[in-house]
Amino acid sequence: MIFLPIALYLEYFRPDAHTLIFFASCIAIIPLAGLMGRATEQIANRAGEGIGGLLNATFGNAAELIIAIVALRAGQIEIVKASLTGSIIGNVLLVLGASFLAGGLRYTIQEFNTITARAQAQMLLVSAIAVAIPGLFHAIRPVDANANEGTISLIIAALLIALYILSLIFALRTHKHLFAGAHDAASQAHADEQWSLRRALIILGVATVLIAWLSEILVGSVEEAATAIGMSKVFVGVIIVAVIGNAAEHSTAVIAAIRNRMDLSIGIALGSSTQIALFVAPLLVFLSYAIGKTPMNLSFTLGETFAILIGALITAHVTSDGHSNWFTGALLLALYSILAVGFFHVPG
Amino acid sequence: MIFLPIALYLEYFRPDAHTLIFFASCIAIIPLAGLMGRATEQIANRAGEGIGGLLNATFGNAAELIIAIVALRAGQIEIVKASLTGSIIGNVLLVLGASFLAGGLRYTIQEFNTITARAQAQMLLVSAIAVAIPGLFHAIRPVDANANEGTISLIIAALLIALYILSLIFALRTHKHLFAGAHDAASQAHADEQWSLRRALIILGVATVLIAWLSEILVGSVEEAATAIGMSKVFVGVIIVAVIGNAAEHSTAVIAAIRNRMDLSIGIALGSSTQIALFVAPLLVFLSYAIGKTPMNLSFTLGETFAILIGALITAHVTSDGHSNWFTGALLLALYSILAVGFFHVPG
Amino acid sequence: MIFLPIALYLEYFRPDAHTLIFFASCIAIIPLAGLMGRATEQIANRAGEGIGGLLNATFGNAAELIIAIVALRAGQIEIVKASLTGSIIGNVLLVLGASFLAGGLRYTIQEFNTITARAQAQMLLVSAIAVAIPGLFHAIRPVDANANEGTISLIIAALLIALYILSLIFALRTHKHLFAGAHDAASQAHADEQWSLRRALIILGVATVLIAWLSEILVGSVEEAATAIGMSKVFVGVIIVAVIGNAAEHSTAVIAAIRNRMDLSIGIALGSSTQIALFVAPLLVFLSYAIGKTPMNLSFTLGETFAILIGALITAHVTSDGHSNWFTGALLLALYSILAVGFFHVPG
Repeated sequence: MIFLPIALYLEYFRPDAHTLIFFASCIAIIPLAGLMGRATEQIANRAGEGIGGLLNATFGNAAELIIAIVALRAGQIEIVKASLTGSIIGNVLLVLGASFLAGGLRYTIQEFNTITARAQAQMLLVSAIAVAIPGLFHAIRPVDANANEGTISLIIAALLIALYILSLIFALRTHKHLFAGAHDAASQAHADEQWSLRRALIILGVATVLIAWLSEILVGSVEEAATAIGMSKVFVGVIIVAVIGNAAEHSTAVIAAIRNRMDLSIGIALGSSTQIALFVAPLLVFLSYAIGKTPMNLSFTLGETFAILIGALITAHVTSDGHSNWFTGALLLALYSILAVGFFHVPG
Repeated sequence: MIFLPIALYLEYFRPDAHTLIFFASCIAIIPLAGLMGRATEQIANRAGEGIGGLLNATFGNAAELIIAIVALRAGQIEIVKASLTGSIIGNVLLVLGASFLAGGLRYTIQEFNTITARAQAQMLLVSAIAVAIPGLFHAIRPVDANANEGTISLIIAALLIALYILSLIFALRTHKHLFAGAHDAASQAHADEQWSLRRALIILGVATVLIAWLSEILVGSVEEAATAIGMSKVFVGVIIVAVIGNAAEHSTAVIAAIRNRMDLSIGIALGSSTQIALFVAPLLVFLSYAIGKTPMNLSFTLGETFAILIGALITAHVTSDGHSNWFTGALLLALYSILAVGFFHVPG
Repeated sequence: MIFLPIALYLEYFRPDAHTLIFFASCIAIIPLAGLMGRATEQIANRAGEGIGGLLNATFGNAAELIIAIVALRAGQIEIVKASLTGSIIGNVLLVLGASFLAGGLRYTIQEFNTITARAQAQMLLVSAIAVAIPGLFHAIRPVDANANEGTISLIIAALLIALYILSLIFALRTHKHLFAGAHDAASQAHADEQWSLRRALIILGVATVLIAWLSEILVGSVEEAATAIGMSKVFVGVIIVAVIGNAAEHSTAVIAAIRNRMDLSIGIALGSSTQIALFVAPLLVFLSYAIGKTPMNLSFTLGETFAILIGALITAHVTSDGHSNWFTGALLLALYSILAVGFFHVPG
């Protein structure tokens, strides 16, 4: 929390210290995103199962969304897409990998509900492919034929949002028994805490405003910081911004794994990735027409496309048999590192 | 059935109404393909299990084959390849998706035989990869090195046909017990009907002649119709021609799913796709040397290749756990729509 | 064994018979690689479970490693990479395919331990993706941005070696019960034989020297032989060199399958592929800086990258349900043949 005043101080009194500003605002966002998540949970717990699940699902990635909206308004489309990619692969490789590893160091084999995990992995796989298709079709299209890309992305965004609504009906209504374990575990995750509704709403509001403020600072310093430390903007988006935006999910999922609540752990990692692909990404496409400098499409770079597909594919495989162990976690983390190395060396 | 005379009337008395001619001939083919399928089934039921299965398997995609042969003779190789792609992805995404959705709206969870479904999905996955390899190797080959592509395609076509023969031996002889459920269900699908052999043969002959005639009309009008409505030929082939050619399978599979006969439903969708890849595609390569204007190879475009691989991969995943529900159906249909949007905007 | 003197005779008395020299040295290596494997096994059996497993795992691909080191010293990097690709796909498509086919001709359905097979397939899948990533990132990078490729490959090589060490801890220590069946079967594979340690060490030494000698001859003649018979160097590496280097594993795995010891059969095929990706490939990257003419990176060609990914993906699928039959074997062999046809026609 100490980094919040540091970031603000640097921004307004040391405006040339871009790299310091960038990292201070990055670190300052992490606890705020965590607070925001807990406030949402508190409100959701009060709202009853259906609406509560909806709130949790819809605002689960609120911190990422705020950062992305700020970047969108600043015309930093490349960073937005990179951070979407990073959120997807970060959740399924870094968060799930760390959960499997941390849990696996305590338990030889950890078990989880295959039917739920498979349903989530299917959702993730299809949404990853859906998000990847514009990029693939962009890559194979002749250079002079890009005129329609905006239209394609709008149609696909509409389809993804429709699928997101259907996924909520599926998970919260028609097949909620499949997700019962994860829901129960989620509502118990911080069951010791009880905030008043008023307190939860105030914390939510304050955290939102602060995250938005810090995001402005972060996005404003990203270009100079990237140049100063020799990283491409894609790397900053895919790895750094994404890690910050998902730090809260990350710690909750790892703690759940250490407590052998693998259904919750997997639910967070896969649910969060799926939500980025089905809800946050298409929402940003629509918002880009309203508030962005330039409209955003869904044509990710080939590197991002491969990373998304590989992440979803591996996840589908490692969650299909209902068992995890520390080595599977190490495999996922190694894959994440290798992708990070690849993105680090992609020119900006 | 009313569209048959309409299509013929338009073709000979309104030869300039290309778009109308195109759609009338499209729609007219659908019930004829259905009749043809039922006549084949009647003959197959009489022929005893082994030969009957062989007949059903070999003539199951007869309508597609006739359309493709007509297009081949007219030198419309692009349409032939696009309709093969469309048949493969149409069966596994559109037909299977619609079956899962329709069945899932009546039953919360539908179960099917995993061993059979996995065997079929394996076959499909390998045949999809096999069909995709010439396209992938074409894409990565230097521009000036295409001289041998005819030879490669002939060798691969021969391997695919060999694999097809082996798959018949596997499904109809050495491991027929794995496919017993699907076969029984298939022979009961229209068990209420009993045609005389004579009637079946006559209907088969008449339907074949009429489909061939309508295909000539369809192929003759495709170019102008595509231009008039602003669609690429690839889209026409992948989506429109493929949907027509598979309409009969489509309705049978969906009806089977509504009756909770998922083994039959999956057998039709996966079996039909596999047969296109293992039998129809290589057969057309050989036929192109005998009757085509120009020889056809198996180098699909990268868009087609991705679509085939993605379709097979998703199918392998959703059929591997023996359960289906409406949301999985919606996922498959959404993926089909997204691919269709992609193909719509690929330039002709 | 008769080919050993033939190869040496040709090399020194008929130095212009490049094609004959090439094939004679190829064939002569096969029994030596087999001897080497058996000597390693004998030493490993004596060394107790832990160290024995380590020895077996580390020297299991010693013949390939020797050939690759000789090729590296001669600056034939293209051949080294091609033979690594060939070893990976050869083990999972050719060796596993032949095992499934041979075993399946005797037994209708063969069963194996899913948990072990899935753990191995996961390892293989992740290592295949890891090895493929430099090639993918290379392919999508602008032409003028390759400066860092050496660094990327070194970092990834270090990560792969770390993962290899972890995989040994996993398989030989923390989760050795998962691999118990395969280990038992492996130690019984040649249980009838008992060599003295001295004999085993002498045979190991002599075989190593002879393989190194023959590899020099093989690598020296490969260029002229490839030109003479009209094959690209990539084909020679992917298919011919790889088949020779893996002939010993091949026969052991097939014999195990015929005896219905599928766990051993799968363990050999998947274990050997994984070891190539996790240990041999990165080791060669490091060695290339010490002994090579030019440093080697991990950027495989796109054709090789696709082949590795396809091989790993199919393997993950066919080993996930715990059953095999002859047709699955035929599918794997057909896929191998189709890839071989593709590589044959890739220009040198």
